Amino acid sequence: MADVSGKRAVGPAIGVDVGGTRIKAGRVDETGRVEARSVIEVGDARTEEDIVARIAAVVGNLDAGGALPIGLAAAGVIDPIAGCVLESPNFPSWGHFALADRVGAATGRPVSLENDANAVVFGEAIAGAGRGAANVLGYTLGTGVGGGLVLGGHIWRGERGMAGELGHVTVEPDGRTCGCGNRGCLEQYAGQVGIRRTMRERGGAMATLAEHASAPARLAELARGGDADAQAIFQSVGGYLGMAVAALIHTLDVTTILLCGGIAAAAPLFVPAMEAELRARTFRSMSAGVQILVGTLGADAGIVGAAAIASGANG
Amino acid sequence: MADVSGKRAVGPAIGVDVGGTRIKAGRVDETGRVEARSVIEVGDARTEEDIVARIAAVVGNLDAGGALPIGLAAAGVIDPIAGCVLESPNFPSWGHFALADRVGAATGRPVSLENDANAVVFGEAIAGAGRGAANVLGYTLGTGVGGGLVLGGHIWRGERGMAGELGHVTVEPDGRTCGCGNRGCLEQYAGQVGIRRTMRERGGAMATLAEHASAPARLAELARGGDADAQAIFQSVGGYLGMAVAALIHTLDVTTILLCGGIAAAAPLFVPAMEAELRARTFRSMSAGVQILVGTLGADAGIVGAAAIASGANG
Repeated sequence: MADVSGKRAVGPAIGVDVGGTRIKAGRVDETGRVEARSVIEVGDARTEEDIVARIAAVVGNLDAGGALPIGLAAAGVIDPIAGCVLESPNFPSWGHFALADRVGAATGRPVSLENDANAVVFGEAIAGAGRGAANVLGYTLGTGVGGGLVLGGHIWRGERGMAGELGHVTVEPDGRTCGCGNRGCLEQYAGQVGIRRTMRERGGAMATLAEHASAPARLAELARGGDADAQAIFQSVGGYLGMAVAALIHTLDVTTILLCGGIAAAAPLFVPAMEAELRARTFRSMSAGVQILVGTLGADAGIVGAAAIASGANG
Repeated sequence: MADVSGKRAVGPAIGVDVGGTRIKAGRVDETGRVEARSVIEVGDARTEEDIVARIAAVVGNLDAGGALPIGLAAAGVIDPIAGCVLESPNFPSWGHFALADRVGAATGRPVSLENDANAVVFGEAIAGAGRGAANVLGYTLGTGVGGGLVLGGHIWRGERGMAGELGHVTVEPDGRTCGCGNRGCLEQYAGQVGIRRTMRERGGAMATLAEHASAPARLAELARGGDADAQAIFQSVGGYLGMAVAALIHTLDVTTILLCGGIAAAAPLFVPAMEAELRARTFRSMSAGVQILVGTLGADAGIVGAAAIASGANG
């Protein structure tokens, strides 16, 4: 079976994470190390031209006069083959936008574009926690829950580039309503917004804490300090993750499960419950050998993944 | 994206469905048509040698003196690369058994081996209802619920050959216990055994009918005749299937859903509820274009799929 690591260079390339608040870029070497970084705030100038100009600026900061290829990562519905942003939650005014071509014209370099969650998971698969795994089921646990799949060493994008919406696997058939139309999606229980909802439902001090700007981090502190309520909330997060992963292990027979994003920092608080639920809900021969890993690249994962794709590591 | 049909010949080859009760074989031409059939009962002689001898006999019946390659399909945990049966529900006394090599030695022909549900789904994908689709999510609705995945034109077997256990996706987190260790697996609601459980839980005439040998077929007759209880049971089957499929569409972005096996004959009774549930539980942009197809090869699907694999159609 194909191996993601070792055989493919991660760089040299410029990886650019095109976020709604800031544009973060890094010059990535062939081993996946970020050698230099550049960040520009997006601010109020948010047209297509504005963003292309800012991307060209961060690239210039990192590789002035050079010709390194550029890998872009952006949220939303992406067509990676055409290099187009089809639907952007951060830039809703954009139409179908040929971002890769436009950045190519502005910089004179080869440019690739990928969905941001796919880039994060691919970065971790090729140069981070998943290094060496050909197949990875990766979750991005942030405000919501996203994800990405690496199958046979390549990002599995699906028929229309929309695969990897791992937060929209049902874990409570009659549960909380979700923006996708479903009820009881994993995202409603295991992302920051979902955890706040759980805190509010608990009432009392938890409901008050839920309104705090850094509620999930504060909740983790409480749990580490022994607070039973806070610990129970993280255990429920783990239980829901375990249930969702069990369904996908039965479907795909993948053994490397990767946790990325801000909530993954609290992994020790929920991974034991996740593992227990996963094992209780899976054929023993299929749960054997499954490993749950926490991303090691942190906020760099998307940059590294985008650079790796620009370098041709995704084939 | 790769296209399963048209570009690859399905035969000529001999496809053999190695069941626990009978061994069914067919000579399949390059278009996927079954030109001739041969069936032998397994009876009480069930050792490894007995089965190899019977397979050699059906092959001799169909291609005496010829050299057509042989594709085998068998239930259980299969290593298709090594051609080994690792665990067989029909022949529990077998150890790790190199079935492909042994049939090759007995017949002097090239032999391949595949999991039976994968063979059914691949057969329908290449020569049946799914012809033309590169990506197929296929369910085998029989005594239990199995399945297979075709991704990018090839069977997705997973890391250890165990992928496609689509009946073990959770649809009722606190539901009926399942042999896999989980609670509320799809199989417990949408397979024959599951439908009988639902009938028993309803009590009265339904509980009596549940003990009838052909209960699911009788239930379908009742539903077609307008019986509201019977119709409700099929609607619940559709609802559970729709919920399970929604999770996998979000994960894989596959648009061709294929229903095979005995229960699929009752598709008109449950597909409307399945479609409604699927759409209610999926991003609109992802459910758009999803088509639910019913297998057209019937009991031949496994034979055709096995022959296609023997002909190299899976690459």
